[in-house]
Amino acid sequence: MEESSESPLVLVHRPPTLAYMDDHLSRNFRLLNAHLSPDPLPLFLSRHAASVTAFVNIGRLKIDAELLSHLPSLQLLVCTSVGTDHVDLAECKRRGIAVTNAGDAFSDDVADCAVGLLLSVLRRIPAGDRYVRSGNWSKPGQFQLGIKTKRYIVVGYRESVDKDENYLMNLVSGKRVGIIGLGSIGSRIAKRLEPFGCIISYNSRTQKQSIPYRYYSDVLSLAADNDVLVLCCSLTDQTRHVVNREVMESLGKEGVIINVGRGGLIDEEEMVKCLVEGVIGGAGLDVFEKEPQVPEELFGMDNVVLSPHAAVATPGALESVAEVAIANLKAFFSNQPLVSPVRLG
Amino acid sequence: MEESSESPLVLVHRPPTLAYMDDHLSRNFRLLNAHLSPDPLPLFLSRHAASVTAFVNIGRLKIDAELLSHLPSLQLLVCTSVGTDHVDLAECKRRGIAVTNAGDAFSDDVADCAVGLLLSVLRRIPAGDRYVRSGNWSKPGQFQLGIKTKRYIVVGYRESVDKDENYLMNLVSGKRVGIIGLGSIGSRIAKRLEPFGCIISYNSRTQKQSIPYRYYSDVLSLAADNDVLVLCCSLTDQTRHVVNREVMESLGKEGVIINVGRGGLIDEEEMVKCLVEGVIGGAGLDVFEKEPQVPEELFGMDNVVLSPHAAVATPGALESVAEVAIANLKAFFSNQPLVSPVRLG
Repeated sequence: MEESSESPLVLVHRPPTLAYMDDHLSRNFRLLNAHLSPDPLPLFLSRHAASVTAFVNIGRLKIDAELLSHLPSLQLLVCTSVGTDHVDLAECKRRGIAVTNAGDAFSDDVADCAVGLLLSVLRRIPAGDRYVRSGNWSKPGQFQLGIKTKRYIVVGYRESVDKDENYLMNLVSGKRVGIIGLGSIGSRIAKRLEPFGCIISYNSRTQKQSIPYRYYSDVLSLAADNDVLVLCCSLTDQTRHVVNREVMESLGKEGVIINVGRGGLIDEEEMVKCLVEGVIGGAGLDVFEKEPQVPEELFGMDNVVLSPHAAVATPGALESVAEVAIANLKAFFSNQPLVSPVRLG
Repeated sequence: MEESSESPLVLVHRPPTLAYMDDHLSRNFRLLNAHLSPDPLPLFLSRHAASVTAFVNIGRLKIDAELLSHLPSLQLLVCTSVGTDHVDLAECKRRGIAVTNAGDAFSDDVADCAVGLLLSVLRRIPAGDRYVRSGNWSKPGQFQLGIKTKRYIVVGYRESVDKDENYLMNLVSGKRVGIIGLGSIGSRIAKRLEPFGCIISYNSRTQKQSIPYRYYSDVLSLAADNDVLVLCCSLTDQTRHVVNREVMESLGKEGVIINVGRGGLIDEEEMVKCLVEGVIGGAGLDVFEKEPQVPEELFGMDNVVLSPHAAVATPGALESVAEVAIANLKAFFSNQPLVSPVRLG
């Protein structure tokens, strides 16, 4: 650990268990570890951080105007997530504080998670896993290839062909998938789904040039024309509750929602109602509005797959995000362009 | 339902619940429904099936020499599965009975299932789903992004970087995937995994021409050079227990096995030991040696995903296999080449 006084000073705050960046940071900078102080954070910052120009915020500590007011010299805020909805970007802009995020470090992981959730919902993988673990598959008298629920035959052949019966375990091939947010994550999801025979379209702020997928300028039409909606855009004032009751009604009773963005992109209360009422057909959710609180109504549903905000939780991704954070700090201290700046509106 | 005496006669046997082909069959043929008789099958066949030339076996009824001896005029056996390990193919060859299977009808479904299981094991999707449903994620005092097991941090960030600690939740990108059996299913799995950044190689009876993937003539070397083994070959005398203890030791402690072929491809007893002992890292299994019996040791493992032989259980696939079966029967009765003949060795 070199902590020479020549190294620039960097303020760090992290949850106790997120130690993955400690080595990287201490090798390159002098650190002011706010999370190690017993003092309340505002007090600690007022006392020790007046001259701090760079702040690495590991995790999801809310960065609002009040907290920023204790950092009068701050010029750079390094975030370790892709989304920066926990940061008051308007205040950062007003103050001239640059903000960086995880850039592409997580993109492959999040795309893998989204496709994994999509397959898990359509093919009922966790429901089938529960069924086998329950021991019911091998019980005498049960049809060996069937699980039935109220509305679906979850795994196994249909016992009777009732055309009005709704079911979802189905070919992934041919599914129309509408992606909301075709950035670095969304485009990786599209690329992965193409060889499954999925038909991709998307919504984003502006139409992308030289992208072969059909563009929808509004989410309602996107939902109407697709079987699956995948949410992987930023959470902003414009995208909060972008999936509301009307969009879910438009998606329809066999429609599936996959959310690897932020919980606030969906009106969660309405989504629970839509799932209970069969307005939509299923959901695969890595994020929730009040996580780690998850609506308990979802716990009994076989057409829903729940994931504890784990899309980025791979060792490879943590290594990558540490590299991106260090690269941003080094660029900042040597007056080079930042590696992954966040647009401040 | 036209059952004119002009229509050819077809013998049918199916489990009670697999009615999906009834309409297709009765529209085209006169049917001798063996499964509707209260008589034991051999007795029924001896009494009524002496002149039968075509037999549709829906499901997995064992077709051995003894059963075939009651069908002296049989020329065509139509199976509705891809694998025909339940049929004595040597006896069919000796008797000059042609055998057909499901052809490509299930290939997309099985490939989707294989990739779904692979993502589910590597990204611990069912384990994460169990964790959220248990309510533990939101319990105060628990780290909100972590689930720890004995050997793995299943979902969430690693608490400490212990290089000797074994873990599997990881990037799918860059994983080396060895496919055993690069037929219509295996090649679809390869195609799907390419955009995830997986590196594909394969083993099959003979090297395929104009295939870019590296070929291994033996499974032991394939296992040694790969992170994941995917089994999607036929079960034959040559492939029974193709994955034995030696192969699993070669695959190694972070290695994962995905099986969408037949349970008998793996020495299941040894596989359970290898999972218990940490010789391999995980498994995603749609098939089992004595299904629906599944070794109970697997029920408590978070690095294992269990599926009740559901790879083909989609309505789309059932429609497709009915079409293939009918097409084979029509071809047979009009002396045209069969659509999906099985090679009889």
